[in-house]
Amino acid sequence: MLVVMSPGATEEEVQAVIDRIESVGGTAHPSRGAELTLIGAIGDADTELRVSELELGALAGVSKIVPILKPYKLAALESRHGIPSVFDIGGAKIGGDNFALIAGPCTVESRDQLLDTAALVKSCGASMLRGGAYKPRTSPYSFQGLGVEGLKLLAEAREQSGLPIVTELMDARDIEPVLEVADLIQVGARNMQNYGLLTELGRAGRPVLLKRGLSATLEEFVMAAEYILKEGNEQVILCERGIRTFETAYRFTLDLMAVPVLKEMTHLPIVIDPSHAAGRRVLVQPLSLAAAAVGADGIIVEVHPEPEAAICDGPQALRSEEFEQYAQAVDQAAQLAGKASFLQTQARSA
Amino acid sequence: MLVVMSPGATEEEVQAVIDRIESVGGTAHPSRGAELTLIGAIGDADTELRVSELELGALAGVSKIVPILKPYKLAALESRHGIPSVFDIGGAKIGGDNFALIAGPCTVESRDQLLDTAALVKSCGASMLRGGAYKPRTSPYSFQGLGVEGLKLLAEAREQSGLPIVTELMDARDIEPVLEVADLIQVGARNMQNYGLLTELGRAGRPVLLKRGLSATLEEFVMAAEYILKEGNEQVILCERGIRTFETAYRFTLDLMAVPVLKEMTHLPIVIDPSHAAGRRVLVQPLSLAAAAVGADGIIVEVHPEPEAAICDGPQALRSEEFEQYAQAVDQAAQLAGKASFLQTQARSA
Amino acid sequence: MLVVMSPGATEEEVQAVIDRIESVGGTAHPSRGAELTLIGAIGDADTELRVSELELGALAGVSKIVPILKPYKLAALESRHGIPSVFDIGGAKIGGDNFALIAGPCTVESRDQLLDTAALVKSCGASMLRGGAYKPRTSPYSFQGLGVEGLKLLAEAREQSGLPIVTELMDARDIEPVLEVADLIQVGARNMQNYGLLTELGRAGRPVLLKRGLSATLEEFVMAAEYILKEGNEQVILCERGIRTFETAYRFTLDLMAVPVLKEMTHLPIVIDPSHAAGRRVLVQPLSLAAAAVGADGIIVEVHPEPEAAICDGPQALRSEEFEQYAQAVDQAAQLAGKASFLQTQARSA
Amino acid sequence: MLVVMSPGATEEEVQAVIDRIESVGGTAHPSRGAELTLIGAIGDADTELRVSELELGALAGVSKIVPILKPYKLAALESRHGIPSVFDIGGAKIGGDNFALIAGPCTVESRDQLLDTAALVKSCGASMLRGGAYKPRTSPYSFQGLGVEGLKLLAEAREQSGLPIVTELMDARDIEPVLEVADLIQVGARNMQNYGLLTELGRAGRPVLLKRGLSATLEEFVMAAEYILKEGNEQVILCERGIRTFETAYRFTLDLMAVPVLKEMTHLPIVIDPSHAAGRRVLVQPLSLAAAAVGADGIIVEVHPEPEAAICDGPQALRSEEFEQYAQAVDQAAQLAGKASFLQTQARSA
Repeated sequence: MLVVMSPGATEEEVQAVIDRIESVGGTAHPSRGAELTLIGAIGDADTELRVSELELGALAGVSKIVPILKPYKLAALESRHGIPSVFDIGGAKIGGDNFALIAGPCTVESRDQLLDTAALVKSCGASMLRGGAYKPRTSPYSFQGLGVEGLKLLAEAREQSGLPIVTELMDARDIEPVLEVADLIQVGARNMQNYGLLTELGRAGRPVLLKRGLSATLEEFVMAAEYILKEGNEQVILCERGIRTFETAYRFTLDLMAVPVLKEMTHLPIVIDPSHAAGRRVLVQPLSLAAAAVGADGIIVEVHPEPEAAICDGPQALRSEEFEQYAQAVDQAAQLAGKASFLQTQARSA
Repeated sequence: MLVVMSPGATEEEVQAVIDRIESVGGTAHPSRGAELTLIGAIGDADTELRVSELELGALAGVSKIVPILKPYKLAALESRHGIPSVFDIGGAKIGGDNFALIAGPCTVESRDQLLDTAALVKSCGASMLRGGAYKPRTSPYSFQGLGVEGLKLLAEAREQSGLPIVTELMDARDIEPVLEVADLIQVGARNMQNYGLLTELGRAGRPVLLKRGLSATLEEFVMAAEYILKEGNEQVILCERGIRTFETAYRFTLDLMAVPVLKEMTHLPIVIDPSHAAGRRVLVQPLSLAAAAVGADGIIVEVHPEPEAAICDGPQALRSEEFEQYAQAVDQAAQLAGKASFLQTQARSA
Repeated sequence: MLVVMSPGATEEEVQAVIDRIESVGGTAHPSRGAELTLIGAIGDADTELRVSELELGALAGVSKIVPILKPYKLAALESRHGIPSVFDIGGAKIGGDNFALIAGPCTVESRDQLLDTAALVKSCGASMLRGGAYKPRTSPYSFQGLGVEGLKLLAEAREQSGLPIVTELMDARDIEPVLEVADLIQVGARNMQNYGLLTELGRAGRPVLLKRGLSATLEEFVMAAEYILKEGNEQVILCERGIRTFETAYRFTLDLMAVPVLKEMTHLPIVIDPSHAAGRRVLVQPLSLAAAAVGADGIIVEVHPEPEAAICDGPQALRSEEFEQYAQAVDQAAQLAGKASFLQTQARSA
Repeated sequence: MLVVMSPGATEEEVQAVIDRIESVGGTAHPSRGAELTLIGAIGDADTELRVSELELGALAGVSKIVPILKPYKLAALESRHGIPSVFDIGGAKIGGDNFALIAGPCTVESRDQLLDTAALVKSCGASMLRGGAYKPRTSPYSFQGLGVEGLKLLAEAREQSGLPIVTELMDARDIEPVLEVADLIQVGARNMQNYGLLTELGRAGRPVLLKRGLSATLEEFVMAAEYILKEGNEQVILCERGIRTFETAYRFTLDLMAVPVLKEMTHLPIVIDPSHAAGRRVLVQPLSLAAAAVGADGIIVEVHPEPEAAICDGPQALRSEEFEQYAQAVDQAAQLAGKASFLQTQARSA
C-alpha cells in the first residue's frame, strides 16, 4: 500500500502514519520529494490487509491511499503459480484448453420442452444442460419459475441425457433441493454480492457458476469468488453476462475485455453468457464467436424449441434448427484461441 | 404497451400480433403509416402485465416493444392519488413536510462509542439512530460486524436515548434478532434485488429503508420496493446513496436528480445517504445541504466520536464537534425546500 | 509518480527503471518488499512531466504506473495559494462569495423573444444574458441557429438591457463575429476537447465558460481548462451540465458532487447548468436550489417567454412568470452556502 | 413518433397535440385506453423530422415522446436496400466481405521509425498504413505531433511502400496539407461531434474514418456520420475504439456488440481499434481475434519497431516480430465471420 501525503503535511503527520503502519507489523518506507511525501507500506499480504484496515485515510495530512497488492489471495493466478484451474463438472471438463458449451432453455417450462432441448443440445455437442427453476425477475408480478417442480424435471433430464445440470440458486434457504440435482450451481448477477448465499455455497462444496454483477468491477467480481473459495470450495467459474453502460441500443454491454484481463488476475475459468446482453437471437452467434476467439473457457447460451412460445426471454433464445451449425462455428473459434475441439472430445467420449 | 413493427412486416405478421394481444384480453389499435405500422395495446395495468408476458418481441415482423404503463402499482404516486406517504417510525415522522435526520456510526464498535454517539445526535436534533451490526464487506477478510452482540448494544442505545433504531439486515435467516431491535430495517445496495430478503421483509411488516443498487435504474429501484409492498408492508423508504459512473474522483456519484424524479413516480419517502458516495468528511456537508434543498425527505449520515479510530469508513464520518452546526444548516436547507423545521419539531416534542 | 514492479521483476529490470527516471533528472526511491518493489519518482512538476513522457509502462517488469502529482498547474488551487478566483464579466462578478445567475433562451429565435427575455431576467436579478446563435445539434437536419444574425440581436439585447452576453462558439473560424458581442464565450460539452478551439480562445483573451464533456472525468475537465490558461487567458469558468450514466429516466445525470470536489482541485469558478440534464421544467428549480446549496458560483438557466413555441428545448425552459420566484429561491440557497445575496448586490448597483 | 399523454390529460389537450401534428402535415392516430391515451404521428421521414421539431413535449398533458423512425437517412442500411457499402481506399477494399488490416505507429516520430514500420506491415499483409502527425493529447504539455513535418514523412512512406495512408485531422484549418497525403482521414473520438470539422470533411470528398466518441450512443455515432454524408461524401468508415464505463481495470471498455448492431443500422463499414482500450500489448491479439470473429470489416492497430522508445502509447503497440503471426491469426478469425482472406488477396495483388 502507498500513502500519499498532502503537499502541506507536517513531519509529525508523516511520523504518525509511519507509527500506525509499524503498529500492525508493516514496514514504512517514506520518500520525501520537493512537493510531497510518499510512504510505502511494504509487507506480505496479511500485513497489507492489517494496514488497509487501519483506515489511514482518516489521519491528518493524508491525501490518498493507493492499494498495491491484490486484495484476493485464493483466487489469484499466483496462488496456482500461474496455472489455470481445470474443473470436472459431472464429467465435463472446463478450463485450461477445455472449452465447455452449456446450453438449454432460460426457464424450465414443461417436461417436453426440457427433454426435447436436452436431447438436441446433447446431440449437437453441448457438454452441460442449463435450465432455471428459480428465476429472479425485476417485477414481483412476473413468472418466478417452477421451483421444486422444475428441479424434478431437471433431474429427469439429467438421467435421460447424461448431461450435467446447471441451475440457479437464489436463496440460501432453497439449497437442499438444488443440491439434489445441480452439478453446477449458478449465482445470478443480482446476487453476486449476496454474501450469505456465497458463504453457504462455499460450505456446500458443489461447483459454482458466479455471474458478474451489472456494475461490478473485475476486482469486486474476483472478491466475490473469494468469499466462496475462503470456505474451502475451490470450484468457482466466473461468468461475464453484460454490464450497465450508457448505451441503450442493447440491454447490457457484453464486456469481452474481461476475459483476457481476468485471466491475468485469476486461475478460475471464465465463461460468457451472450444471450442476456444481446436480447435478440441474431446477435447471439457473432457474440459467441467473439467470446470463443477472445479466449473464454466456455459459453452458456439459451436454446428453445419454440422461442415464440417461451415464457421468458424467447426473443434471445437460439432455435433448435440453428443450434448444430452454431456449435460448429463456436468450436472453430475456440480452437483459434488455443482450445481443444469440444466437438471431437464429445464424439470420442460418446 | 406499443408494438413497433419492422418496415417490411407483412399484413399477416401484423394480424398475428393483434391476435396474441386480444388472446389475453387486450385491445389492439393498429396505426398504419407510409413507412411502418404501430400497434397500441391499450388496457388496464393487469392487461398490460399479461400482454408484456407474451414476449411479443419474439414474433416475426416485430421491431421493438415500447412499454407505456408503469410496471409498478402499489408504489406508484397515482395509487395514493398523488399524495406522498407519511410514516411514523417509532415516533419520528418522515415524508410529506416531515424531514428526518438519521445519524450514527457506520458500524457498532463498542458500548461507549454507540451510547456517546446516540446522546450526541439526539441532543443535536437527529430523529433516529443508525448503526450497523451486520456489515456487507467487499472482502471476506474484512471485519463483518459485531452481529447479535451489536444488536444488543443498539437495544441499549434505544432505551437510553429514546431514538428509534435503523440497522441493516443482510440475510433473511437473521431476521428474528433484527426484528427485536430495529424500528427501521435497512436493506443495503448490494441486496436491492435480493428478492427472498425483500419478500421476507414484506411479510415482517416492519418499516424498511431500501437502498438503491449501484447501477439500478429508478424504475428497477421502485420495482424492488414493490416486492415489499406486494406482501402487505406499506412502509418502505427509498434511499439514494450514489451510483456507479465513469468518474474516479469519488467512490460513487451521488444522484440527487433521483429525488425530484422519484417524487413524480412514487408516494414513498426518499432519503439521501451522502457519506458513502463522498468517502471524505469535507464533502458531507455540501452534499447534505444539496440533498435537503433538492427536496429529500431525510438524510442518513455517519457520525463518529473519534473517526481516526473507526473500524470502518472513518474518513467519511462527521466529527461529534461538527454535528450541531451541521444539523442546523441542514434544517435551513430543508425548509427552503418546503419542509417543517425538524429542530423545532424535536424541541417541541422534548 | 510511482512505479509498481511485477512480483517477478528482476533486479536488472528495477535498475533499468531507475536509470530511465534519472536520465531525465528525476530522483528514484526504490522500496523493496517481500512481494514486490515500488519505485517512487519524486521531483517537481516539470520532472514529473518528463518522467511521465518516458512511458515507463512499456518497460519489462513494470506492473503499473500510479501518477501522484496533479497533471495541471495553472488551474490548480495551489497556484493561487488556495484562494478562489473572482472574475468580472462585463460588470458581473463571479467566484469567491459572488454568485451569478445567467439566464436567457436556449436559442436566439427572434428580436422580440430575445429582448423580452432580456428585460425580464434583468428585472428579476439575473446578472448575465445567455442566448445561442450557433447551436450544436445531434442531427444535421435540425435548426442550427441564426448565426451572425443571432449575434446582431444579442448585441442589441446587450445595449438595451445592459447585461453582459454569454454565447457559444462552435468553430474557431467564427471567432471574429463572436468576439464582437460576447462577454463570456461558451464552449459546449461536445467541444470540451476540441483543442484547436481551446487554444484559439486562450489567445483571444475573452472570458470562457467551458462545459464539461458528457463523459469527461474532473481531471480531464480541468486539463481542458489548462489548454486555455496556458495561452495566457486566465478567465475560465467551469460548467457542469450533466454526465452520461446508465440511468434512462433523465437525459443526463447532473453531477453536483463535482462542485465541492472541483473546488478542492482548482481556483476556477464553477457554474451549474440544470436545464439540459433535467429536460423538463419541473425539475429545474429543485436542481437549481441544490446547485446553489452545494456551493456553485453560479447557475446558467433557460428561460423562454413562450416555451410551447420554442424552436429548441422548450420543455426545459422556465416560464417568464415563474422566474422571479425562482431567482429569489436560488438567492436564498446560495446564501446558505456562504454567498452574498446577488439580488441585493444587483439592487445596490441599479 | 408516438406521443404518450399523461393519465389525467384532458380531451382538449389531446386535441391540441393532434392539431400541432397535423399543422406540419403529419397524420395523428389517437388510441384511447382505460388509463391513458397514445397518439401515433405516422408519416414519412421528413414529416417525422418536422413533427420532432415541434417540441411536443412542451405541451400541456404530454407525458413523453417516443421516437419511432430512425433519425438518420443516408447512413441507414435501408437507403442501400440492405446492401453493405464497399469502399476502395487507394486500392485497398473494405466492406462487404473485404477485411482491411490497418497498421502502423501511433505517432510519426522519425523517418526510420515510419519507413521501417511501413515495410514491415506491408510485408505481413496490412492493407493500409496508419500514423499520426497531429495528436490530440489530454495535457497541453504533452507532445502534440510533428505536424506538417510528419505529413511529409507519411507521403514518403506511401511512395516507398505503396500503402494508402490513414492519418488524423484535428482542426478544419489544417485540411489542406492533410488532403495532400491522406487516403483516409481519421476523425478522433474527441471530435466525433465537432460539426464544423465533419461538414468540412463532407465537402472535401476524401474517405473518412470516424471514431466513436467515448460516451456516444450508436445512434449519435451514426448521426455524426450523417453530417459527413449529407455534404455528398459517401465514404465514411465507422470505428469503435472503446467506451467509458465504471470499470477501472482497463482504460476504455471495447464495445464489440457495436459491430453486429451497427450492421443492422447502417451500410457503412465498421472497424475496430483494439489498442487504445487495451492500453497493453498482451490484450491486443485476443481483442483483435474477437473483433474479426464478431464481424468487423477491419482492424486498425498500433505497431512500433521499438515500443520501449515510443514517444506515445508504447505499452500498447505490437512489436514488429509479433506482427506476422498476429496478421495470420486475425486473417483466420475474419474468415470465420465470412470474410475473404486478406492475406491471400494481398498475395494475389502483389
